[in-house]
Amino acid sequence: MPSQTTGNRKGAAARLLFADTHRSADQRYVSGFDVPDPFISFQAKRKWHAVLNQLEFSRALKESRFDVVLPLENAMEQAREAFGSSRVGYAEVVTTLARDFGISRFKVGADFPAGLAFKLVDLGLEVEVADGSLFPKRETKSEEEIACIREGNRCSAAGIRAAEKALRASVVKNRILYLDGRKLTSERLQRIIEVACLEAGSVSANTIAAGGDQACDPHCNGSGPLRANELIIVDVFPRVTKTGYFGDMTRTFLKGRASEEQKALYAAVLQAQQEAISKIKAGVNGKSIHGGVVDTFSRLGYETKRGEMGATGFIHGTGHGLGLEIHEAPRVSTVSQKLKRDTVVTIEPGLYYPGLGGCRIEDVVAAREDGAELLSSYHYRWQIR
Amino acid sequence: MPSQTTGNRKGAAARLLFADTHRSADQRYVSGFDVPDPFISFQAKRKWHAVLNQLEFSRALKESRFDVVLPLENAMEQAREAFGSSRVGYAEVVTTLARDFGISRFKVGADFPAGLAFKLVDLGLEVEVADGSLFPKRETKSEEEIACIREGNRCSAAGIRAAEKALRASVVKNRILYLDGRKLTSERLQRIIEVACLEAGSVSANTIAAGGDQACDPHCNGSGPLRANELIIVDVFPRVTKTGYFGDMTRTFLKGRASEEQKALYAAVLQAQQEAISKIKAGVNGKSIHGGVVDTFSRLGYETKRGEMGATGFIHGTGHGLGLEIHEAPRVSTVSQKLKRDTVVTIEPGLYYPGLGGCRIEDVVAAREDGAELLSSYHYRWQIR
Repeated sequence: MPSQTTGNRKGAAARLLFADTHRSADQRYVSGFDVPDPFISFQAKRKWHAVLNQLEFSRALKESRFDVVLPLENAMEQAREAFGSSRVGYAEVVTTLARDFGISRFKVGADFPAGLAFKLVDLGLEVEVADGSLFPKRETKSEEEIACIREGNRCSAAGIRAAEKALRASVVKNRILYLDGRKLTSERLQRIIEVACLEAGSVSANTIAAGGDQACDPHCNGSGPLRANELIIVDVFPRVTKTGYFGDMTRTFLKGRASEEQKALYAAVLQAQQEAISKIKAGVNGKSIHGGVVDTFSRLGYETKRGEMGATGFIHGTGHGLGLEIHEAPRVSTVSQKLKRDTVVTIEPGLYYPGLGGCRIEDVVAAREDGAELLSSYHYRWQIR
Repeated sequence: MPSQTTGNRKGAAARLLFADTHRSADQRYVSGFDVPDPFISFQAKRKWHAVLNQLEFSRALKESRFDVVLPLENAMEQAREAFGSSRVGYAEVVTTLARDFGISRFKVGADFPAGLAFKLVDLGLEVEVADGSLFPKRETKSEEEIACIREGNRCSAAGIRAAEKALRASVVKNRILYLDGRKLTSERLQRIIEVACLEAGSVSANTIAAGGDQACDPHCNGSGPLRANELIIVDVFPRVTKTGYFGDMTRTFLKGRASEEQKALYAAVLQAQQEAISKIKAGVNGKSIHGGVVDTFSRLGYETKRGEMGATGFIHGTGHGLGLEIHEAPRVSTVSQKLKRDTVVTIEPGLYYPGLGGCRIEDVVAAREDGAELLSSYHYRWQIR
């Protein structure tokens, strides 16, 4: 029967991962290089070990951050001998390695695969799920990581710049935008942004370029023709190919003529965003930052309402941690979470009212001792004639 | 204490997922739409239910394949009441839903997060890890899915075509390739391919464009200047943005003049690949297909050797299933696995000898009753003057 032990044994549990580096930011963090298929890594005797097959082995020796790289084929052979069976899998490999290294207890992340966890327990190992992150250090960034995130936002800005240029070059006929004689759709604008991100050295997937009421659904990517006189949200979060770090920036544009209501909406969001950024520094609580945004919107008369069929107003958190994951700890939201020194978060308030439209403005900051350091840079001129 | 039960109770276990649709192909399969953050989905009373927050709720009603969409906020509120606590998480939400739906046992995939699985067991639910896939149906494709994979390979071919065009347009100076006056590096060629994939409606990440000895490491993406008279492997596996399905094709090119050894190597790989494709049909065993490739290479004098520092020859499997994941069941390799009717696999033999270079040719086929149906299409002319 599987059993889970939480810290009632002497000695620290050895950290264990089984994941590829695309889906698991923890594995990317500990590996320092890219592996497309899941593999075992673990900490033993203060050293990080990877168990990799022949396809990855020599590249791991050259490119990875691991202290020790073990060939999977040998580890499989040892497991076959230890279990006296030709049918062994990753659980038997980990169990055999654990015996060799004198490990009886592993600590895994909450996202560790349950299939393997249950099998390890069946084979007599203790498996403890980390309370929180397996790598708490990931929440605060080194200067090298901060440079990687800056680079991510340089890519985001390249995407936004390409979008602005396309909107500027577009012409309006019957309220519909046309570029080079064809309708400028959300999909075309997304492609334009993504090509710019690629050329800047990153991959932007699920890029948001949504206008009108579509933009009122913050996770709607946008589809169909873009229209004049409507707010268009452009949210670009590319992953830098070389390092795996993300950028994340949003600007809202309008092609044509903005109404007074749209101008007021934009001004409110920009004010809330700039105020929030000015309050960021090491030690501040994300909840108070978020509360400040809520208060500003409320003071300016923008109500938030939640119904069965959706919500209007300020309907998401103020921001989130950014790094090897697009959404990582901490959140800047209703939850009480202090921003540690060198934490990197997005600040992205938004307001969404079907009929009027959606507006979101997002930048990325590092919480430094003396305030926010902006890691993203792009202007806030939003009206395009 | 957590406990795992494997089928000793009456009644089927209800399938349960907790994942986003980018990392989990199962969640993408059951959802039929895109959700960037992890969410609960489960089967009860023959219907698929999703529990989604307000950000995703209305979009799920419009775009998803779910029979029932429940608002997460309500489910959280019910869990708070059931547990008499304000601090509830996904485990309490699932447990509360399980009570409402009369579910005592869940079946999860091997990749279900261990953190949540252990908590559910702690809260009194039985959690069974599926032996194999949670969705065995994913191994055989519907005609709609096959069309999606064809579309993926149309994108792959667009990428390969762009690469060939760039190689054709390049000029050689001191054995180095130049395009538009600048060195044509692996990275530039990757960007050219990825832009073409984007314009075709897909995202190609980790594109391989590797020449010379770099190409002998099948998972090396390639970096630095490309050279004349060297084999260049171009492996393009984009994900179609709209559907989530992948394409996966490889061609090997050479700019300049090929040696007799290179010509023989290419001919051997093409022969092995075409023979393997001709043997594909419903019911055939992947192991025999792979064995045929091994025999062909051996007969033609190409040895495979494995050493501590890497391997040379035919050092990987012949192919793998393709669909919502780039690598999915079944494998076409040393493992005995029958190809069911309408299974889609890649056929991609390769030979790798540092000094001589690497060559891989990959197409995608569906195993039909009467043979292989090619789902990818691009010519095999590889020498570019």
